[in-house]
Amino acid sequence: MSTPIGYLVSIGGAEDKGTDLEKGIIERNRLNFFELGILKNIVKLLNHTEAPVVEVITTASSIPDEVAENYVHAFSKLGCAKIGHLRIRNREDASNQEYIQRLKECDCVMFSGGNQLRLSSIFGGTLFLDILKERYDTEKFVIAGTSAGAMAMSNTMIYEGNAAQAHLKGEVKITTGLGLVQNVIIDSHFDKRGRFNRLAQAVAANPGTIGIGLGEDTGVIVTGGVQLQAIGSGSVVIIDGKSIHYNNIADITFGQPISVENIIVNIMSVGDIYNIATRKFEGREIIINDEG
Amino acid sequence: MSTPIGYLVSIGGAEDKGTDLEKGIIERNRLNFFELGILKNIVKLLNHTEAPVVEVITTASSIPDEVAENYVHAFSKLGCAKIGHLRIRNREDASNQEYIQRLKECDCVMFSGGNQLRLSSIFGGTLFLDILKERYDTEKFVIAGTSAGAMAMSNTMIYEGNAAQAHLKGEVKITTGLGLVQNVIIDSHFDKRGRFNRLAQAVAANPGTIGIGLGEDTGVIVTGGVQLQAIGSGSVVIIDGKSIHYNNIADITFGQPISVENIIVNIMSVGDIYNIATRKFEGREIIINDEG
Repeated sequence: MSTPIGYLVSIGGAEDKGTDLEKGIIERNRLNFFELGILKNIVKLLNHTEAPVVEVITTASSIPDEVAENYVHAFSKLGCAKIGHLRIRNREDASNQEYIQRLKECDCVMFSGGNQLRLSSIFGGTLFLDILKERYDTEKFVIAGTSAGAMAMSNTMIYEGNAAQAHLKGEVKITTGLGLVQNVIIDSHFDKRGRFNRLAQAVAANPGTIGIGLGEDTGVIVTGGVQLQAIGSGSVVIIDGKSIHYNNIADITFGQPISVENIIVNIMSVGDIYNIATRKFEGREIIINDEG
Repeated sequence: MSTPIGYLVSIGGAEDKGTDLEKGIIERNRLNFFELGILKNIVKLLNHTEAPVVEVITTASSIPDEVAENYVHAFSKLGCAKIGHLRIRNREDASNQEYIQRLKECDCVMFSGGNQLRLSSIFGGTLFLDILKERYDTEKFVIAGTSAGAMAMSNTMIYEGNAAQAHLKGEVKITTGLGLVQNVIIDSHFDKRGRFNRLAQAVAANPGTIGIGLGEDTGVIVTGGVQLQAIGSGSVVIIDGKSIHYNNIADITFGQPISVENIIVNIMSVGDIYNIATRKFEGREIIINDEG
């Protein structure tokens, strides 16, 4: 696989409440205030184009118009002149010629949150996804996603798993994601929802992968397909299964609690760089993370 | 330090709601149904005495009589004939001659949940604590504790730390516990309250220690001061800082996010044995964990 020229921006998502970004009013809509700081990092990646075009993909969400309106508002505030809404609700929409044309012409797509199974089942095997990957591989194209939109980026995707039961075999359900990044499993809302065991089980069952646990108000920028840089105010927990010794997951029945020895865990904060190919920290860089 | 003859039973605690153990009614009181399974493990450790005497210590709790009543009820159901309540509310009570005499005569003490600072500040430096340690060191004496009662067992004790802020330096507050077990930091309600970052920060700041994250309905039996065996239905997360490479905690200011590279994490489930001296799994044993 060649080294992608584009960038991924995976964001840990927000709660189902938010802020009118202009007026500072809470709970008007579902896009959280904090994302403005994160979105700023996305806009910075678009510096090479004079008038960047962003398309918001709301396929994962059950309230697409509300969500799109928020992102349009937020990206406008950050100086993006053209923000569109690819209102793709099913596989037929995904092959809509107008949408495909707009995908070819934009500089960035932003996948909203919602249900990651909608993303994998609607985009899997489509021309739309092929074009998305092609542009990511060969151009300075930016693919951003929050919550479900982040979780669907990997090849191995968690689609269900109650945190309180996540120490039991079989409780963490895995399927195939969009495959934009290989050998990782991305989880979102990581601290807030206590998902350590959930991601650890996913990694224990797939020790070749690296678990990326994204906190809220937090994300990673993926460069060259392997280099992760943390952005935002929270932490990114990296769960690396390569050194696991004892692991009972193959031997126990469904519903039994798992035991796993010697998982390596890294905690990244803003600016930290981690390489998923070498599985090591590669230093740190100061990132502007203000909200203003 | 010599090898203690006694046992510690550290339990991850319960929510502030519970069950009438006889009638199965929810929320009548604050002792959860599940603890019966855990308490059974405690009673098993008392097999060597014919009529074991248990004393419940409710010092951590703000509702001591309610809590004591529940434990008396639960231990009775498990066949313990004599269950007392050491109603120690302050340091003066801790030197009460009757209580000290009863401490000398019982086979097991059970520290309830509540506020672990009450335990450390009321028992620290008392004759009561000296006798407790002496009995634990030299006899098959059982010291059990749930939630705050578990967290206070270690020498290094977390007394505050909001999970949502636990990736920020200084948010996890540490003081000295009762010192029944050395070189560990015990946290409770671990999965339910999303405390991975909190315990990881405590270990990153004290890498000589081992973090023990106890889930609810879950605990460890500590034998010989170093051997942990998991009991209960959940998982015990062991956080080992000995191999940490990069760690920014000494270099950043308070309120800045921490970065920590290469923490070793183990997930134990019922029956697993881990040695805190060798920092390794030592196998597994089937434990009876039913509620009946």
